[in-house]
Amino acid sequence: MLGIKLVRSYELSLVRQLYNQLKKLIMQGQLNANEKLPSTRVLAKALNVSRNTVVEAYDMLFTEGFIILKQGAPTTVVEQVSIKQQAVVKKIIDNNKPFKIDFLADFKTGQGDLKLFSIHLWQQMLVKGSQQLTKHQLGYLSPQGVSWLRSEIAAWLFRSRGLQVADTDIFITTGSTQALNILADLLNKKVHSFVVEDPCHIGVLNIIKNKQYPYTGCVVDEQGIQPELLTHKAISAVYVTPSHQFPLGGILPAKRRVQLISLARKKDFYIIEDDYDSEFRYQGAVISPLYSMDAERVIYLGTFSKSLFPALRIGFVILPKALQPQWLHFRQYMDVQNNSFEQAALAEFLQSRRMDKHIQKMSKIYGERRAFLLNCLKQTFGSDVAILGDNAGLHLVVQIQGKKFRDDFTQQAASKGIRIATVNDYSLEKAPYTDKLLLGYGHLTPEQINHHIKLLYDFIKTYKTS
Amino acid sequence: MLGIKLVRSYELSLVRQLYNQLKKLIMQGQLNANEKLPSTRVLAKALNVSRNTVVEAYDMLFTEGFIILKQGAPTTVVEQVSIKQQAVVKKIIDNNKPFKIDFLADFKTGQGDLKLFSIHLWQQMLVKGSQQLTKHQLGYLSPQGVSWLRSEIAAWLFRSRGLQVADTDIFITTGSTQALNILADLLNKKVHSFVVEDPCHIGVLNIIKNKQYPYTGCVVDEQGIQPELLTHKAISAVYVTPSHQFPLGGILPAKRRVQLISLARKKDFYIIEDDYDSEFRYQGAVISPLYSMDAERVIYLGTFSKSLFPALRIGFVILPKALQPQWLHFRQYMDVQNNSFEQAALAEFLQSRRMDKHIQKMSKIYGERRAFLLNCLKQTFGSDVAILGDNAGLHLVVQIQGKKFRDDFTQQAASKGIRIATVNDYSLEKAPYTDKLLLGYGHLTPEQINHHIKLLYDFIKTYKTS
Repeated sequence: MLGIKLVRSYELSLVRQLYNQLKKLIMQGQLNANEKLPSTRVLAKALNVSRNTVVEAYDMLFTEGFIILKQGAPTTVVEQVSIKQQAVVKKIIDNNKPFKIDFLADFKTGQGDLKLFSIHLWQQMLVKGSQQLTKHQLGYLSPQGVSWLRSEIAAWLFRSRGLQVADTDIFITTGSTQALNILADLLNKKVHSFVVEDPCHIGVLNIIKNKQYPYTGCVVDEQGIQPELLTHKAISAVYVTPSHQFPLGGILPAKRRVQLISLARKKDFYIIEDDYDSEFRYQGAVISPLYSMDAERVIYLGTFSKSLFPALRIGFVILPKALQPQWLHFRQYMDVQNNSFEQAALAEFLQSRRMDKHIQKMSKIYGERRAFLLNCLKQTFGSDVAILGDNAGLHLVVQIQGKKFRDDFTQQAASKGIRIATVNDYSLEKAPYTDKLLLGYGHLTPEQINHHIKLLYDFIKTYKTS
Repeated sequence: MLGIKLVRSYELSLVRQLYNQLKKLIMQGQLNANEKLPSTRVLAKALNVSRNTVVEAYDMLFTEGFIILKQGAPTTVVEQVSIKQQAVVKKIIDNNKPFKIDFLADFKTGQGDLKLFSIHLWQQMLVKGSQQLTKHQLGYLSPQGVSWLRSEIAAWLFRSRGLQVADTDIFITTGSTQALNILADLLNKKVHSFVVEDPCHIGVLNIIKNKQYPYTGCVVDEQGIQPELLTHKAISAVYVTPSHQFPLGGILPAKRRVQLISLARKKDFYIIEDDYDSEFRYQGAVISPLYSMDAERVIYLGTFSKSLFPALRIGFVILPKALQPQWLHFRQYMDVQNNSFEQAALAEFLQSRRMDKHIQKMSKIYGERRAFLLNCLKQTFGSDVAILGDNAGLHLVVQIQGKKFRDDFTQQAASKGIRIATVNDYSLEKAPYTDKLLLGYGHLTPEQINHHIKLLYDFIKTYKTS
């Protein structure tokens, strides 16, 4: 009857099947306005289902306003409820595609070796940490984050960097991207510029670009940002990586730190200090953050994406008091707060000092990989190769004598299956860095390093340099 | 020597202690530019520490540019590195305060009973779900979310609402707040207005207000939004809650659904359908989403904050194909992606059908609480009380004969320890809803309902209505 077909083995209930098909007939105008529907008894018999099934389907159509149900009167279709249904288009876009590319040699920067992180260990932390959660903590909480985690982060910053910070000044984030996103809105002074290091992390730049806020670069040298170049009249904020400049690898010297802070006080702007990978330093102690010099002018960004794993989505920001109320407001209307199970797991990881052991272990491994890569580069490229930057982090900057890498280098390398970036790819003013390559090695085993450098050598040999 | 004091029992290493104190002396100008520092041998002896401790501290100061270290020459302080240090202010702001208030009677809306959610169950899901994760999934993935979860959500929408949707059109979010935040930027056409229902969820309105995008209200009646009032020339998007209007509780009838979609096609705008709590319907089947009528004009928002718990921070959005590339771009620069352990846990929860059982169980409980509350209201207020809205969700709208609740009602109630909102609190045009109260009951046991309604009755009795 009415072309309706019901399938008993189907996952969808008979009621919903019947409802769907009747609704379709009505919407397509095959059952017209004011047209009578068969009685529940007749339709049930024709479809060989219980009368109750039809009653329920009719009830649904009535509740949603498709039909008129009146005792003693026939059931009729409501007026003006037909419309061309726009169903799901069959064409499937694979949105994951750009995230799936496999390279023969992958020198991507800023990622640790995820193969060495134990999923089992994190499961343990989740179970152990969440035993401390109250039922109240399953609900909406302060956007600032769970206080247990904040005090463990404060303790960790003190142990690892000698940094003294009150846990009430720490704000949990879902990572530095979120932090920068909020800070861009919070610090934007409209006609004033955001200043970023040049070269700098492109992701950081894109956050500001996306919002169409004015920005400008400040050229760095081998030591980092040069405060004497900050002659701009109006600055919203300055973004710096003083512990390990990205990508060039310099450590900002005390004199420039003092200059930068004096300038911030004089011109009334904030400094955003991104401490993205300073945990991993293979010679000497971890660099002391700029934040320790001025807790009212410096905003400190910390992340666990490099030290633990990116899909954790936990980072933090240390905020000057003046910015805290507005930060809470922005976070509240952005995504409210972090997941509480993951916060508890990280707090447990820090409190039990597993973090300290983990960093120690990974520093040793990354330090060995760095040394292996240096050796490999020297053996392959000979004396043509020069290394820049501090003995730290998860990537190297190399120069190869007599070689210039044009804008097409990255793409040409990719066509040969090699993922590699030049410093120029991270530069606002393209010219000055055509001779510098970035090699990420944190995620590579010695065998992979050997193999990848050979591929890179073969490619560079054939790459026409001018 | 130099007033330096080192404490062996201190958590901070002797090296960092020494470094910190020397740095402070330099920054404060007590050790002046070009001043000689004691030799490592002399200082080590004076402080009764190993010479290595002093060497390491000097190395740190050298690396960070505070001192000049030259073999054969005395160690001296660098020029221009003194600055007034701005340490952490002692004053502590308790940012958690507004989230901690305890009420004697709390009728907050939109929250389920967290006391009934088992932390142990979620621990199991985390462990079981994350066993399916690869090491690759600890890293940066597509902002769209883990594909396992997306296909389980598609299956769940089909089982629970008869909704047919491709998992490739589902985008995982950290909740509806995030979804609306991204959509506001994505759909904003500058001079055009966002249209929200009036009254509507204030959080939704605040997201648009915060961004300073133009908006306007469209007055709803007991059935929901009235498309014939959408006479605005230029509309960026229309936000609706057709399955259960918030806060009034109406179900949008088919005729208005058809009108709304026809209008969207004609005037070229998108409809944002927020399906925030339609899982919980105590009579009849779950309402079919508007999305099923037009997958190219309707954006569907789903959340697990009401059905599971808010601190999970997982929701999703079903996007028309035309919006997908830009969505990925916005999400990438907002916070990249969701945590992968929680995504796997939720996928496991859905796949194992624990979700179905959970919703069944909670629907029964909430339905009973609703019935209990209705009964309690009738017994307390007698025939003066009228109930509005569909038999669904986690809150009721009540009218009390002869009572008008002015703007000060909510605040006066709070001063008596009662958290309660009026519909007026959610209204853009204040006048029309002075006689309607909102009672959230999902989180209240029958005993609490009894107690809270008594308190409310006593308060309303004394509240001067004009």
